[in-house]
Amino acid sequence: MISILGKWHQDDRKSYRKGCPQFFIQDDRLFEKWDDRHVAFLKHEFLRLKNAVVLWTMHPWERDARLMKEALVKGPQAYGVIIEVASTRSSEQLLGARRAYHSLFDHSIEEDVAYHINDSRRKLLVGLVSSYRYEGPKVNEEIAKSEAKTLFAAIKNADKKNPIEDEEVVRILTTRSKPHLKVIFKHYKEINGKNIDEDLDDELSLDETMQCLCTPQTYFSKVLGAAFQNGADEHAKEALTRVIVTRADDDMKEIKEEYQKKYGVSLSKKIEDAVNGNYKDFLLTLIARGE
Amino acid sequence: MISILGKWHQDDRKSYRKGCPQFFIQDDRLFEKWDDRHVAFLKHEFLRLKNAVVLWTMHPWERDARLMKEALVKGPQAYGVIIEVASTRSSEQLLGARRAYHSLFDHSIEEDVAYHINDSRRKLLVGLVSSYRYEGPKVNEEIAKSEAKTLFAAIKNADKKNPIEDEEVVRILTTRSKPHLKVIFKHYKEINGKNIDEDLDDELSLDETMQCLCTPQTYFSKVLGAAFQNGADEHAKEALTRVIVTRADDDMKEIKEEYQKKYGVSLSKKIEDAVNGNYKDFLLTLIARGE
Repeated sequence: MISILGKWHQDDRKSYRKGCPQFFIQDDRLFEKWDDRHVAFLKHEFLRLKNAVVLWTMHPWERDARLMKEALVKGPQAYGVIIEVASTRSSEQLLGARRAYHSLFDHSIEEDVAYHINDSRRKLLVGLVSSYRYEGPKVNEEIAKSEAKTLFAAIKNADKKNPIEDEEVVRILTTRSKPHLKVIFKHYKEINGKNIDEDLDDELSLDETMQCLCTPQTYFSKVLGAAFQNGADEHAKEALTRVIVTRADDDMKEIKEEYQKKYGVSLSKKIEDAVNGNYKDFLLTLIARGE
Repeated sequence: MISILGKWHQDDRKSYRKGCPQFFIQDDRLFEKWDDRHVAFLKHEFLRLKNAVVLWTMHPWERDARLMKEALVKGPQAYGVIIEVASTRSSEQLLGARRAYHSLFDHSIEEDVAYHINDSRRKLLVGLVSSYRYEGPKVNEEIAKSEAKTLFAAIKNADKKNPIEDEEVVRILTTRSKPHLKVIFKHYKEINGKNIDEDLDDELSLDETMQCLCTPQTYFSKVLGAAFQNGADEHAKEALTRVIVTRADDDMKEIKEEYQKKYGVSLSKKIEDAVNGNYKDFLLTLIARGE
């Protein structure tokens, strides 16, 4: 980092300072003087770059373990990260994160999730982080069909009981293989005429879980879209770094295609426009990997 | 096996036939003629030896996966085997069994347990087979103390709700590390004046889970004791083979000490008296390993 910063030309620094400021926290107390304001900008930009580089240099298992721990510490509004990590990783990747969690935090991830989460999402989240899903192609169509009906009944009955607390809904989402779930959702659409996620707009955690499990690239491109839209929101800013760093060596190609399809602009163009400096260069380098 | 059987002397066979018959199934339909009866004995004896040898030659992960699958197929009276395997193995051993289960049965173990078990034990069993417990020594005494109170309240409140379905009881037993659980049970005794398992005599599955987690050698020596006592019972006979084969390379030494202490006779003496033939020799060889 020092060598990168050291190479900056005076003009670079000026253009950097004039760059798009709406992506950063604008705390007026920090901006009383012109100079202080630029120092604050720089500090924030450096912090984002530093965070991205630190996250990138970690082993993926350690990274996932730390992301989940951080979400637990931050509390309810960050639990989506736990759903994301537990549901979009392969069985072996999630297991690696659980191993790393042991050695980093002297607890198991399911132990901490079960102990710290006290809202309606507890059962779902404990199941998601504990799962070691079968990843073969074998799917029993009959069972999938009957489970589509089970989900439909639970979701349509939501007035009486929140489907996220329904034992059968949790069982299906936390134990079935991803190919099996896809077949369930196909049957669900046949029963209902629309996709299951359209039925779950009010149930954000369930909706997110289903997207992460079955259409992770759609999910990730939505997270990126939201991160650019809510550029000033701390959580959205972290999401940008998190998604790009964690997916760079995985399914970034598909995410870029999905992003282009959804927003009509390429992800790299959007990054060019929305962020600055070395942080921008770093993100662009990451999303170009493997091309 | 053929070479072993081929070496038998006439007298061996005679003494074998006169051996302790109460250990075998006595189905009178099989015993209409004297000769048929001996053939049936032999068939059963061979079957036991064969089962023991087959179980012994498997990789421990495959063995555990198959034992759990068999228990699921047999139904509710066999679910104790799932508790035993999930709770007495180390985190890595259980994980190995989960891996083997994937490739053998095209499902995850937690998927099958959650789908097939419909009684009050479902939540407990799903949690036990999904757990990847922390195995380090760190224990938070304060939390353990407070969780001892939680368990006490749930067990004392059993008139209103079966503790095996209590979410907190299940959470504690399925996610806490074994050292942490031992500290909980120590505090439980301080609160209550007696051990937690004495409070759970009517809750066999909970009692078994706690024993398997914290005093596995006591649990195994009890299973052996019951196997000798109910020699004619098919389940008890399988338990004898299962415990000796699965523990031979693990904690057999401690189990033998525990058995001697509990029943006042050595395990090898008991095997000498209660079983016969090559099956007996095989069990004696297994329990002598590592001496």
